[in-house]
Amino acid sequence: MPKDSALNKALVIFSGGLDSTVCLYLAKKDFLHVEALSFDYNQKHKIELSKAKRIAKKLEISQTIIKISSEIFLGSSLIDKDLKVPKKSLNKNKLPNTYVPGRNILFLSYAVSFAESRNIGNILIGVNALDFSGYPDCRPDFIQSFQNMVNLGIRGNDKSSIQIKTPLLSLTKKDIVLLGDKLNVPINLTHSCYDPIKSKPCGECDSCLLRKRGILEAKLSNKYDI
Amino acid sequence: MPKDSALNKALVIFSGGLDSTVCLYLAKKDFLHVEALSFDYNQKHKIELSKAKRIAKKLEISQTIIKISSEIFLGSSLIDKDLKVPKKSLNKNKLPNTYVPGRNILFLSYAVSFAESRNIGNILIGVNALDFSGYPDCRPDFIQSFQNMVNLGIRGNDKSSIQIKTPLLSLTKKDIVLLGDKLNVPINLTHSCYDPIKSKPCGECDSCLLRKRGILEAKLSNKYDI
Repeated sequence: MPKDSALNKALVIFSGGLDSTVCLYLAKKDFLHVEALSFDYNQKHKIELSKAKRIAKKLEISQTIIKISSEIFLGSSLIDKDLKVPKKSLNKNKLPNTYVPGRNILFLSYAVSFAESRNIGNILIGVNALDFSGYPDCRPDFIQSFQNMVNLGIRGNDKSSIQIKTPLLSLTKKDIVLLGDKLNVPINLTHSCYDPIKSKPCGECDSCLLRKRGILEAKLSNKYDI
Repeated sequence: MPKDSALNKALVIFSGGLDSTVCLYLAKKDFLHVEALSFDYNQKHKIELSKAKRIAKKLEISQTIIKISSEIFLGSSLIDKDLKVPKKSLNKNKLPNTYVPGRNILFLSYAVSFAESRNIGNILIGVNALDFSGYPDCRPDFIQSFQNMVNLGIRGNDKSSIQIKTPLLSLTKKDIVLLGDKLNVPINLTHSCYDPIKSKPCGECDSCLLRKRGILEAKLSNKYDI
């Protein structure tokens, strides 16, 4: 396969959190050329972007940060300062108010335009449908339908077809921590908290709780901050 | 049905061109509440946005303009100043270089996040698969697959389900002109040209040729500029 084949190139949707950082390290191992795409949507946890920058620099990966106008998304406690991020509330059946309307649809769509423009044949996204907050746009059937849509919506020859890859989709958070550890991911450099207090994780939001549980179950709390 | 039901509200993807303006007038006729979403992606024909503003103002429709970073899309003569927009080239079998990678995927995705955030139940897009340039993201099977993806990717209760509507999909340009005329669309205010010269239509790009043919076939060249 020629070195510059689209099949050898990957674009990682990269927030600077645990999951997407594991994806980035997986991509670095599996593809000749890797780029990262990050999003600034005025999230309360924008600190993740500075972590993402450090990690991308460490891996010598070209990172593009897309600014999404904050007027698009309404009603999410990840953005709206009048809405509180739920604490100690994991495993309820209701979709939490941290849900951002259509976020992964929009992130993936940006990735498709970016990848098709650059002849990149793979998009990696760290969605996970086991230890997650029940977001519809993290589920396997959503990802499959997004792939079907892309197959019809872009140029559609071999040169530019794009595969959406979700290597973490059916892993538990424990498995993701173990995989990250194996790949030498700098887990302590990653940021997962939805609602940091002076740049520090709150320890109580869904994302903190899932991360903490994963590290504890992996028996790696001596190595990584919880 | 309550007045503020999502079913009574529509968001129109609105460029200021002939097709999307006809969509806007259709929406105004069919829905109680209509909003318009426009995109600035550093297109050479950015003049369309000023036309769009005037038309939205005339109809007293709230318009939001989204800025898309110009570094996303590569290889399109609609954006890249080093690439020439093809002239007098209609009806060739090859996808023209005016194609913008994943443009409608991205535009529709923005519309989904915007609409879901505001409980708007309908998105109108003026795609047309008869008199068009062969773009994959204007075809009926793409639109259907996008709808399927949205059904799985958003909240998915009755309150927030979103229907993608394509009222012009199987109309000829002649039919679109006739429909616009019937709806009192200010066709001379709309802008279709891909490559305007000092804000005036070039008269020779695909978009100009299709528009001209539509007006001539509708026998309305005495009323509308060609």
